[in-house]
Order: sequence, then structure tokens, then C-alpha cells
Amino acid sequence: MSLRHALLATLDAGAMTGYELAKTFDQSANRVWHATHPQIYTELRKLERENLVVAQEEPRGTQGKATKRAYTVTEAGREELCRWVATVEEPTLPRDVAHLKATYFEYAPPDAAREQFAAHRAYHAEQLRRWEWHVEQLRARGTDLMQRRLAKAPKERHAAIVAYKVHVYEGMAERARAEVAWAERGLALVDELERDGFM
Amino acid sequence: MSLRHALLATLDAGAMTGYELAKTFDQSANRVWHATHPQIYTELRKLERENLVVAQEEPRGTQGKATKRAYTVTEAGREELCRWVATVEEPTLPRDVAHLKATYFEYAPPDAAREQFAAHRAYHAEQLRRWEWHVEQLRARGTDLMQRRLAKAPKERHAAIVAYKVHVYEGMAERARAEVAWAERGLALVDELERDGFM
Repeated sequence: MSLRHALLATLDAGAMTGYELAKTFDQSANRVWHATHPQIYTELRKLERENLVVAQEEPRGTQGKATKRAYTVTEAGREELCRWVATVEEPTLPRDVAHLKATYFEYAPPDAAREQFAAHRAYHAEQLRRWEWHVEQLRARGTDLMQRRLAKAPKERHAAIVAYKVHVYEGMAERARAEVAWAERGLALVDELERDGFM
Repeated sequence: MSLRHALLATLDAGAMTGYELAKTFDQSANRVWHATHPQIYTELRKLERENLVVAQEEPRGTQGKATKRAYTVTEAGREELCRWVATVEEPTLPRDVAHLKATYFEYAPPDAAREQFAAHRAYHAEQLRRWEWHVEQLRARGTDLMQRRLAKAPKERHAAIVAYKVHVYEGMAERARAEVAWAERGLALVDELERDGFM
């Protein structure tokens, strides 16, 4: 049930249409908690039915009768968000296919093992680049979402709002760095085993 | 579909009953790919229906007519395992509730943030202890599963069988170490924000 809370926290920055919410989510919480747009829309409808968010019709564009529905968090929604944030969660149990598969690389030819360590390295190097860029953006208070959050929050809370997000994304960057290093040691291991005739 | 391959790889060490397989899994692959006993039994029945494993009746104990069903991997099962091991997998998308929640700690009282960083540190410190112990056991070739694997495998393959598993579990230990460090920096951050009146 983490998606609903991530959506509440995102919407708490200010009114958004479903589409704006999904787009904003893609560029923020999605990097820590993956969800697709259909999942987001489904959850948003549930939040509305439970009165945790409320929709208001707003004019779309500057003329004509077209409207759009913009969602905001209700008082009950904010309470639910605060309750969730303050609750200690059970740790996520591991389901890590890259590590699971590497456990059994003796069943694969050396080049197949290499290909996978190389793919792992490439993926996490790219992730690392993204995390580092995101940390920079957060520190500079430069993301749209951050600017909306800070505009709504009392000044004395700004440091905490920024610092927790920076801490999380630095943690993700640190992890990606560890994955890159692990994949590199893996590549070295395949070379070593092959050189010594142990494959 | 990773569970079925982890079960094939486990059974490839030698014949096991469903119960022995589940117990062995708990002490090995379960630490990288979590599965419950009912999930394991369900998957084992599917593997049998698809002729990837085969069951044989064996006497239970030294006397009497009681029998048990011991499963082994078929030739088709081994081919399927090798095919899977050699295939590059899509990376797992992140779903990390501890990091997601920490993103929003400005919604929580400082003590609730502390409690969660402390729980995160305690959990991963305990995981770290387990990973380190498991690495020791693997290096010493001391686990039951490893001994069964090595007994079946040609001697020139032993180094690779051990080295890949050590590499995976060292990676998991490295990760747990990073999580402990992240939680500690989190605790320091809460103190700092509170001291500076930023909560």
C-alpha cells in the first residue's frame, strides 16, 4: 500500500490533474517505488472514493468550456499520510534476480556470465548518473515538485524537506555505486576463473 | 519465474523430498529470492507436471512400508536451468519502502524518523552478520548444499561453483553494510535538523 502514500505526498505539494500527478511521479517517487500510469490512475480513483483526495473542476486553458479535474489532498488524506510516514514498516524481503542468477553462473559459459555482469554494470552506472543528477537538483531546490512543496511550507521547515530527500537519493546513488563495483569484481572473477581453467 | 530456476538449481545438487527442498532453500537461495513453503510446493508440482523434475518413491526410514517422494532434475530441467542462467534479465525495478518513506520524514516527528532509521540499522546489521557467516561457510565449503554440489561435480569445476556463490553473498554483505551506514547518517541527520530547529 505504499503507492497511495507516495501519491498523497506528491499531491500534497499542490493540486494536480491525474496526468500531471503521473508525470510528476515518474520524475520523483517512481525512482524509489516503481508504478505504471494505469496503477497510478487506479489508486487515484480509490483515494477519491475514500475521500483522501478530492477533485475540483478547473477550466482547461484560457477560453472555452473545457474543464479538467485537479486533485488535492483532504484533511483525512494528510492524516493518513502522516500516520503512514510515522509507522515502522516491515523490511522488504529480497527478490533480486541478478544476484540469484549469478549464484549459479557455473551453469553458464564464461561469456554469458560476462554479458550479465556487463549489463548489470551498465544499468547501475546509468542509474548512478541519474541519482547524482537528482541529488544536485534537490540540493539546488530546482525540481518543479520541490519548488511547489517549498512554496507551500513555512520557511523553517525547508531544510528538513530538502535534507530528507537528498539523504534518500544519496543512499540510492551509494547503492548504485556498490552495484557497479560488484559487477566489476564479477567481471574480474570470470577472467580469473577462465585463466585458471576453472570453468 | 525465478523461483522455479532456483528450485531446479537447488535440486540439481541431489535428490530431495519437498520438505528437504524447502528447508534447504530457506538456508540458501531464499536469502536472495524470498519464497514461502506453500509457494515452493506449488512450484514443485508445476515442475513435475512439466517434466522438469521427476519424483521417485524411496523408503522412509530403515523399516516398514512407509515411503517418501524424492525429486530429481530431469535432462529437460537441467537444460531449462542452463538456458535461464545464460539469459540476460531485465533489471528489477525499485520498490523500496524504507527509502520511499524516508523521502517524506518531514511529515513525521523526529522520534518517529529516528525509530525507523534505528530499525533499518538493526535489521541490516543482523542481515550483515548472516551474510558474513554464510560467506565464511561457503569459503570453507561447509554448507550441506555445497558439499552435495561438490560431491557431484568434476573437481576442476569446484573453484567456480564456490567462487560465484561467495561473490554473490559478499555483494549482499556489502549492500547490508551500505544500508547500515545510510541509516546511521540518517540518525545523525535527524539530530542535526532538530538541533538547528528545522523540524
